[in-house]
Amino acid sequence: MGGLLSEEARRDALAGLAGWSEAADGKALNRTFTFRDFNEAFGFMTRAALAAEKSDHHPDWRNVYKTVEVSLSTHDAGGVTARDVALAQVMNEIAMRLGV
Amino acid sequence: MGGLLSEEARRDALAGLAGWSEAADGKALNRTFTFRDFNEAFGFMTRAALAAEKSDHHPDWRNVYKTVEVSLSTHDAGGVTARDVALAQVMNEIAMRLGV
Repeated sequence: MGGLLSEEARRDALAGLAGWSEAADGKALNRTFTFRDFNEAFGFMTRAALAAEKSDHHPDWRNVYKTVEVSLSTHDAGGVTARDVALAQVMNEIAMRLGV
Repeated sequence: MGGLLSEEARRDALAGLAGWSEAADGKALNRTFTFRDFNEAFGFMTRAALAAEKSDHHPDWRNVYKTVEVSLSTHDAGGVTARDVALAQVMNEIAMRLGV
């Protein structure tokens, strides 16, 4: 899946990823999703979990009631790769279908 | 569902809750569960989410691959109540069935 994205490649990717930003050290992509309630938040997580498992690339995420804070990083590579961008896109699509 | 548990009541409850400990300020119950892989960790979360939703009492939790860090607190009451103890027990039962 290739290695670390350059700063420029990350900037280009983020331009197409609504709601995502870079960690201060540039080593992760972060977004906090806010849903209507726990049911929706966990529904989002369930769909995202299936996608993550299928691609064998998993998020670091925290859920508190209707919010889901996500951080994506490729630990083997020590930062952001195309796999993180791909999972961020999938998460945005899932959230969009839920009206977020 | 009653109010905040006293320090003594929390200590009694924790004595029956394998793996759980109190936050430094006594306002939450914490446990980190470690499973075999993401499939098991998210399976645990899914069962716990259904139980949480049914009782309308939800965890603050973070998942990183095969680990699930849980913090339970009753925000309306400002700390630990019987509802947190009940959810902690349910989570332990779910984890135990998964062999954890």
